[in-house]
Amino acid sequence: MTHDIASEISPKAGDRIEALSTPRPIIDEDRLTGNIARVQAYMDKHGLNFRPHIKTHKIPALAHAQVAAGAKGINCQKITEAEAFADAGFEDILITFNILGPEKLVRLSALNDRISGLKVVADSTATVDGLSDYFATRKQLTVLVECDTGGARCGVQSPAEAAKLGKYIAGKPGLNFAGLMTYPKPDNAAATQEFLSQAVALLKAEGVECPIVTNGGTPSLFDAHLVTAATEHRAGTYIYNDRSMVRAGHCREEDCAMHILATVVSRPTEDRAVIDSGSKALTSDLLGFTDYGQVVGYPEAVIKGLSEEHGVIDLSKCTGPRPQIGDKIRIIPNHTCVVSNLFDQMVFHRDGVVTRVEDVAARGLVW
Amino acid sequence: MTHDIASEISPKAGDRIEALSTPRPIIDEDRLTGNIARVQAYMDKHGLNFRPHIKTHKIPALAHAQVAAGAKGINCQKITEAEAFADAGFEDILITFNILGPEKLVRLSALNDRISGLKVVADSTATVDGLSDYFATRKQLTVLVECDTGGARCGVQSPAEAAKLGKYIAGKPGLNFAGLMTYPKPDNAAATQEFLSQAVALLKAEGVECPIVTNGGTPSLFDAHLVTAATEHRAGTYIYNDRSMVRAGHCREEDCAMHILATVVSRPTEDRAVIDSGSKALTSDLLGFTDYGQVVGYPEAVIKGLSEEHGVIDLSKCTGPRPQIGDKIRIIPNHTCVVSNLFDQMVFHRDGVVTRVEDVAARGLVW
Repeated sequence: MTHDIASEISPKAGDRIEALSTPRPIIDEDRLTGNIARVQAYMDKHGLNFRPHIKTHKIPALAHAQVAAGAKGINCQKITEAEAFADAGFEDILITFNILGPEKLVRLSALNDRISGLKVVADSTATVDGLSDYFATRKQLTVLVECDTGGARCGVQSPAEAAKLGKYIAGKPGLNFAGLMTYPKPDNAAATQEFLSQAVALLKAEGVECPIVTNGGTPSLFDAHLVTAATEHRAGTYIYNDRSMVRAGHCREEDCAMHILATVVSRPTEDRAVIDSGSKALTSDLLGFTDYGQVVGYPEAVIKGLSEEHGVIDLSKCTGPRPQIGDKIRIIPNHTCVVSNLFDQMVFHRDGVVTRVEDVAARGLVW
Repeated sequence: MTHDIASEISPKAGDRIEALSTPRPIIDEDRLTGNIARVQAYMDKHGLNFRPHIKTHKIPALAHAQVAAGAKGINCQKITEAEAFADAGFEDILITFNILGPEKLVRLSALNDRISGLKVVADSTATVDGLSDYFATRKQLTVLVECDTGGARCGVQSPAEAAKLGKYIAGKPGLNFAGLMTYPKPDNAAATQEFLSQAVALLKAEGVECPIVTNGGTPSLFDAHLVTAATEHRAGTYIYNDRSMVRAGHCREEDCAMHILATVVSRPTEDRAVIDSGSKALTSDLLGFTDYGQVVGYPEAVIKGLSEEHGVIDLSKCTGPRPQIGDKIRIIPNHTCVVSNLFDQMVFHRDGVVTRVEDVAARGLVW
């Protein structure tokens, strides 16, 4: 045997994608580059700062490519992610999360001490008081107010509340108020604009400036210019794209840079194929779909059920050839970000030839 | 500050659970021990061999505890999992998967060479031919026929097909036919028994013995004695249990050994709480539920939506006190196995005091 076991577990540049063992997520280099360039060009055209969210890829080399294309800083969702990217040289990091509790504040402060542009968000006096109590005797922490402009997750509920909390932060020891942040509902630009512009005006009337107003999300990214109150936009999924972004109209199927490479391991019946990719490769994220991904080349195939290591595909609607045992197929996942979180390494390719393997450096970090 | 950052990231014995940063899955030692003992006692009473599926925990120390309690061998779902457990000293490993392709066969053979009791399954002549071609000139591989007794995943569709494929394996160079395997539909013991007993009889009529007939699953585990054709039972989830096992009637809520420890980070409205545990902690597995876990102590709270790092809880039905910002809460996940797959370490505790931290040794192995 000339087969090199170690190299198979960790593919190397020059390997053929078809020779990889499955399940494996793979990233198309040209689509990746295209996605970065297209979104950056849009932001540049509209004079918006762009802050990519690294939760989608968790790979420093990709964030460096995003910044090289023109992005201003990055967005993380947790302290440990931000630490991994600080290790990789990033200085301007916004953590869009309410950070609470002594065990997190000590790490947040250590991170604040070693990079120049750390920023966090808060949506309550409870969070702000916790930050102020801790940072009052330390290097000042920059804080934005998180606003619920319709997304119904975190955030203050009105422009008046945003202004009130912003003013509160501005008066608190240890804290530097820097503006507003929202993770908006898609297709809701008018309401987002209304909320943010009112909050900025209310703060200005109180003599409080908002240097940063940060809007976000990939699904309605190309509406970002309609939110003129925003100074910057954040987005993560756009770099890989996925089935939900195709449905949202953000991109075409040909812009989906991530595929899950899977093998057909069983054809128990004429209408059933079983693949070696289940919820531990595709995840159970439905995002409004009723099935678990799009099988490339078999448009009528329906991935109707997942267990951890198996995916069950209904072929009953397939009018053309059906995949056979041993065939390797590619699947566009419903949601790419959660797939990144399952794998320690990501394999990149161009035209089916491996170009590089990157560690998913910020995967599996506990908090 | 006396806070030790490194020890916080990796908690140590004696730490209080409430001091852990969140999100964190935690395992109750006494419930764990109780679950192992209860199921083993049932198997012993009915004279069934028991083969725990390690996919649920992926931790060698727990498999050693299962074997110490009386289990005969272990069940893995992929080669790389089996390798991790062979490294930990296990010899009797059944991989319940159709293994295909040269890149996997080379590793399967290397594993077969180093442990005494490796077994795999197959449900097609395509899989069997691939195994036989490779193993014909190597140490013989033991193969069982996977039977679809109603689970509608992999498996031959009838006792006649099972007998035919069993006889085929028995005649193939490099392979040793050892019996039948099924992953059954829950609450389907009569049909499972009918399928397996017929297949055994057909094989016996052809002069082919079935030393192993292995049935499986946790939901209907306590019906395993009704499948008298089976010589052994496999189950994974029973060791931790979860919300879906409570619903299935397999266990009580007090038998759920895994909780996700989460912090309330936002209370944007009277009826909404947001926690720091999203799909990267709880997973999106619904398993027939319409929400994403059971909040301990808040029976009317509904985890209605997850994004990667946030969980949105609807409190509108709560009649008692509502959780406040900063509160740490415990959640019973819908499905415990997929949570194990997200974390590199698992924290164990007794009465809220950390007892040990185990590496999730077989997590994130690609195939």
